[in-house]
Amino acid sequence: MEIEVLRIGQRVVRDDRVTTHVALVARSFGAKKIYMNEINPDIINTISKINKTWGGPFEIKTITDWKKIIRDRKKESVKIVHLTMYGQNINDIESKIRNEEKILIIVGAGKVPKDVFVMADYNIAVGNQPHSEVSALGVLLDRIQQGKQFELKFEDSERVIIPQEQGKNVRMNKTTD
Amino acid sequence: MEIEVLRIGQRVVRDDRVTTHVALVARSFGAKKIYMNEINPDIINTISKINKTWGGPFEIKTITDWKKIIRDRKKESVKIVHLTMYGQNINDIESKIRNEEKILIIVGAGKVPKDVFVMADYNIAVGNQPHSEVSALGVLLDRIQQGKQFELKFEDSERVIIPQEQGKNVRMNKTTD
Repeated sequence: MEIEVLRIGQRVVRDDRVTTHVALVARSFGAKKIYMNEINPDIINTISKINKTWGGPFEIKTITDWKKIIRDRKKESVKIVHLTMYGQNINDIESKIRNEEKILIIVGAGKVPKDVFVMADYNIAVGNQPHSEVSALGVLLDRIQQGKQFELKFEDSERVIIPQEQGKNVRMNKTTD
Repeated sequence: MEIEVLRIGQRVVRDDRVTTHVALVARSFGAKKIYMNEINPDIINTISKINKTWGGPFEIKTITDWKKIIRDRKKESVKIVHLTMYGQNINDIESKIRNEEKILIIVGAGKVPKDVFVMADYNIAVGNQPHSEVSALGVLLDRIQQGKQFELKFEDSERVIIPQEQGKNVRMNKTTD
């Protein structure tokens, strides 16, 4: 499945750390790209450094018009998946999404415009309780890929973690400059 | 299964929003309690308000000595589960944890003292890539409860969300004061 993420509604400074976490989860859970507007350049730097150290082709793209992204993707038969505590329970709907070929996941911060609910092909609740867009994205990506994202190799990394029962084991692939 | 969470190492102010997200995920994904030290009182207020509005018995307990919590729980046969990107792949270990009766999940912020790796019964990686302690906690709680946490009723709530394909539907149980 081809997965992209669209982050909307974040407030610069106040939401920067949460937005960084959203981008890191998208990257480490197998999404190809995240779209963001009004972004603090530090977030792009953080992700670039992580790509360099830990590998993979994950991309951040800054945008100005998020509605255009949604409209363009819909024309290309990409299904729009909106994460919201008001939506259908993920337990009831995950198998449907798993059968899609391409999805764009919308991750809002705070209140989201009504249009998003209408433009979305799926409005999905990772539980109908307030929690966190970071874990909602993580659980959705985990459910639809059924854990396979944790077997992915991230190419061209400087470092690779060798899983351990206790302690840390990091293999260095090339010299850090 | 009886689940508690211990948050350690957070920096006041800098990590406050992420810590709030950790607490919200613990609450909404079926943990009973979270232990925290050095906490901004705003976090307790946020969670109290959410309990009032959305129900449930979730509890925040402030502590001073986190090692004591771990030692006390170990004496009571609670298994200690430490989330770390250096640990064993969750795909390989989740079924073992699912068979435990009581667990305490340690969620660190930034670097975690070596002792934690040694005191833990399980060091678990929700993927061996840097991501977010918020999604690591969410995915772990989802895997070990196999989604059943999203069927839980939260008692004594003022509001209940009725899941919708589109839009919002919130039932008011009693008058908000």
